Amino acid sequence: MFWYRSLVKISTANKPKSTITTNLLLTSLSHFSTANQPPPVARLSGLGPTKPDEKPRVVVLGSGWAGCRLMKGLDPKLYDIVCVSPRNHMVFTPLLASTCVGTLEFRSVAEPIARIQPSISSAPGSYFFLANSTGLDTESHEVHCETVTDGADTLDPWKFKISYDKLVIASGAQASTFGIHGVKEHAIFLREVHHAQEIRRKLLLNLMLSDVPGISEEEKRRLLHCVVVGGGPTGVEFSGELSDFIRRDVHQRYTHVKDYIRVTLIEANEILSSFDDRLRHYAIKQLTKSGVRLVRGVVNDVKPEKLILSDGSEVPYGLLVWSTGVGPSPFVNSLGLPKSPGGRIGIDEWLRVPTVQDVFSIGDCSGFLESTGKPVLPALAQVAERQGKYLANLLNKIGKDGGGHADCAKDIDFGDPFEYKHLGSMATVGRFKALVDLRQSKEAKGISLAGFVSWFIWRSAYLTRVVSWRNRFYVAVNWLTTFVFGRDISRI
Amino acid sequence: MFWYRSLVKISTANKPKSTITTNLLLTSLSHFSTANQPPPVARLSGLGPTKPDEKPRVVVLGSGWAGCRLMKGLDPKLYDIVCVSPRNHMVFTPLLASTCVGTLEFRSVAEPIARIQPSISSAPGSYFFLANSTGLDTESHEVHCETVTDGADTLDPWKFKISYDKLVIASGAQASTFGIHGVKEHAIFLREVHHAQEIRRKLLLNLMLSDVPGISEEEKRRLLHCVVVGGGPTGVEFSGELSDFIRRDVHQRYTHVKDYIRVTLIEANEILSSFDDRLRHYAIKQLTKSGVRLVRGVVNDVKPEKLILSDGSEVPYGLLVWSTGVGPSPFVNSLGLPKSPGGRIGIDEWLRVPTVQDVFSIGDCSGFLESTGKPVLPALAQVAERQGKYLANLLNKIGKDGGGHADCAKDIDFGDPFEYKHLGSMATVGRFKALVDLRQSKEAKGISLAGFVSWFIWRSAYLTRVVSWRNRFYVAVNWLTTFVFGRDISRI
Repeated sequence: MFWYRSLVKISTANKPKSTITTNLLLTSLSHFSTANQPPPVARLSGLGPTKPDEKPRVVVLGSGWAGCRLMKGLDPKLYDIVCVSPRNHMVFTPLLASTCVGTLEFRSVAEPIARIQPSISSAPGSYFFLANSTGLDTESHEVHCETVTDGADTLDPWKFKISYDKLVIASGAQASTFGIHGVKEHAIFLREVHHAQEIRRKLLLNLMLSDVPGISEEEKRRLLHCVVVGGGPTGVEFSGELSDFIRRDVHQRYTHVKDYIRVTLIEANEILSSFDDRLRHYAIKQLTKSGVRLVRGVVNDVKPEKLILSDGSEVPYGLLVWSTGVGPSPFVNSLGLPKSPGGRIGIDEWLRVPTVQDVFSIGDCSGFLESTGKPVLPALAQVAERQGKYLANLLNKIGKDGGGHADCAKDIDFGDPFEYKHLGSMATVGRFKALVDLRQSKEAKGISLAGFVSWFIWRSAYLTRVVSWRNRFYVAVNWLTTFVFGRDISRI
Repeated sequence: MFWYRSLVKISTANKPKSTITTNLLLTSLSHFSTANQPPPVARLSGLGPTKPDEKPRVVVLGSGWAGCRLMKGLDPKLYDIVCVSPRNHMVFTPLLASTCVGTLEFRSVAEPIARIQPSISSAPGSYFFLANSTGLDTESHEVHCETVTDGADTLDPWKFKISYDKLVIASGAQASTFGIHGVKEHAIFLREVHHAQEIRRKLLLNLMLSDVPGISEEEKRRLLHCVVVGGGPTGVEFSGELSDFIRRDVHQRYTHVKDYIRVTLIEANEILSSFDDRLRHYAIKQLTKSGVRLVRGVVNDVKPEKLILSDGSEVPYGLLVWSTGVGPSPFVNSLGLPKSPGGRIGIDEWLRVPTVQDVFSIGDCSGFLESTGKPVLPALAQVAERQGKYLANLLNKIGKDGGGHADCAKDIDFGDPFEYKHLGSMATVGRFKALVDLRQSKEAKGISLAGFVSWFIWRSAYLTRVVSWRNRFYVAVNWLTTFVFGRDISRI
């Protein structure tokens, strides 16, 4: 309507100034007139138990692949959904490496939870709480939380409790440092968007500083030496993106320093150890060809400007990215629940924590109990996503059968247990090249692909997996503009 | 070529593991073999004077509208160009307010200098230095600089000097606080991309925290009270974007807290005082209609959680944005150069600093000397852009006439002086509404527009002004996606 309501006038600015504005400007701040009244009687301490005539409440801890896929599948007519997480979005992790060098924008790989499950922001009993989980009382069906107030100078974190009817622990794992001194202080992980932002800012800063008069040759070499520790898919993909960025963009836009920049990938064993031998060989050839130096070595110590390998050799670096896999988080370690091999939360075939009522766990933080006879599944997006989908269906079924409330699901038939079928592994190794290993396991036979065909499969597969159409569109636009205009190099 | 080089093989993974990888992995770190050799004899202390047979060097301090437009227009065949600035990109300031609420992405409003003037990253004698200017020696034709190393933990800032043949000071102004206590500590300005990022992060944090159990009603109201001080175009545009964000996105995605969020715009005099009275009245009506409270008041003191007006009333806030205009920066104040009224660097009609040789100044940091009889031009992108363009042509002319080197331009005819013709002022006041004042000055007669027509003119005008095609494309895509999918609300 207001699209067409437009106004075109010839100015008559020479007439005396009118005072029409004054009245409009003297609006009182009535909004705050309650400030002198006594404050509300007591602070809420959280969300209490639901009543039998209310919708049961599913509390989801975490907003990664597992938690978000679960929330997407949960039926908001059956449940109120409460998500507790220190971030309000899901990170589309397989594309995170591409954002570090400007191939993709940061926002294209972040999907707000409210877009994944709209009821979380609109249903009266559903909430997203920006908080960390700090404890669990399975007897009284309560989760203990503490708000995340980084960036709010005027507020201290506070604690609160949430009662659950069903609890899903999907809080993920944390990056492993293997107890190596200095990793946390000096290396950057690649798990969150802010990590990618930090890598990008540091990379561009080092490129710029190495061009300023007064820097020594040796410092220049150090600043522009990018070291990646860990030869899994993340490390390999990041090295590939980085060397591609160097060959396409640095050579064109930082011509003064282009001969100083180097990428080294350090791995203690074999790179891409889960992949087919031929694919691995192909990856090594491609990475080497594009200028990535592959070094077999074990890191013993990390100093601010160099890392020290077990054979005593020193590797000066300007940027250090650490991607040597994940392990259980302190929150998971603190829980008094049974554990799977490797210290994850132990679950049964229906993804339940079998010793307590109404608690489930999915994603990187959980693993099958030894008693199930099943192996602990790898910490992959694929596993988490499949578990989230399965559990959403299971909880919907339980809700429909009347078992949604706390302690009401004992007699419900849970149906088929969760079965994981590996769909194959993928990794890019630079521009237009990727590996796709479609075997079910390392020992099985199956198809492996390398090169442009698999790059195309890889990009298509990821584009259709990005959750919203908005982000699918953005990723496609990002790829297109990078292809046409090159990567973006502004440091903001 | 490598597009088509793809490889599809049937895996033969059951054969014994090959050792082909080992040799490839044992690459030595020969890159650093020089580390034990003695370091280079002496640190470079900067760029020395150019020789008569070399290209003369133009040193540009700053990378705003003025400096970037100048660099874009300078002929790299005539000059080596050296830019000294604490940021490697230009900020497209008129669209900055839109990025705070997710209408536009941050990257869409940042244009890398290397894209504006490609020779800066490729010509052997042209450079971009990430540094602040700290001093000036006009006798010896030298600028003193210090690197910006924020984010590089392993490097301390260091000083260096650059000799210039021509110097252009385009280092801009800084936000005025009028000496009010607490502004710098607690308010956010809106001049750089990192300001917009900070506003966005704080706004989303406050929205999320106000929904967490345990927060009092009063704190909730405070957290969600956004206060803008300063009723110029920036303050008005930001208020308009914010209230539009609240009406379109907060009401849909933060339904639990939507009734708590408020926007107040505080201005000591009249809002948009440079605009036609009717346009101003229209803006007031539109802002009020969209929920912005306009308050006439003078801020006396800013505390972490509230600001205090001169009449003693207290205004609690959760987000405080300060946009009360600009004043001279400490660097400009420190220079021993003649000043214009208002403390800017004094220039003549050819944008020269007349007391010294080969020094020019453009943009917000400069103003006509009183002796020229011309008024100091307003601190507008329009003025800076026009001055940059004029000076690029002037310097190219001087270069062609053989006056490029230091102290060689004394006998050159400078041609026509700089003339400023105001093309009109524009400001948006929320969705699909803008003001366009096409009068030459406040007293002149001319056309004023308000509403959708002017919104369309505004958007088109800005789209064609965004420097690169890449960013024009991105801005159009951002506007389209915001229109179709709504704004992005992930806090990354």
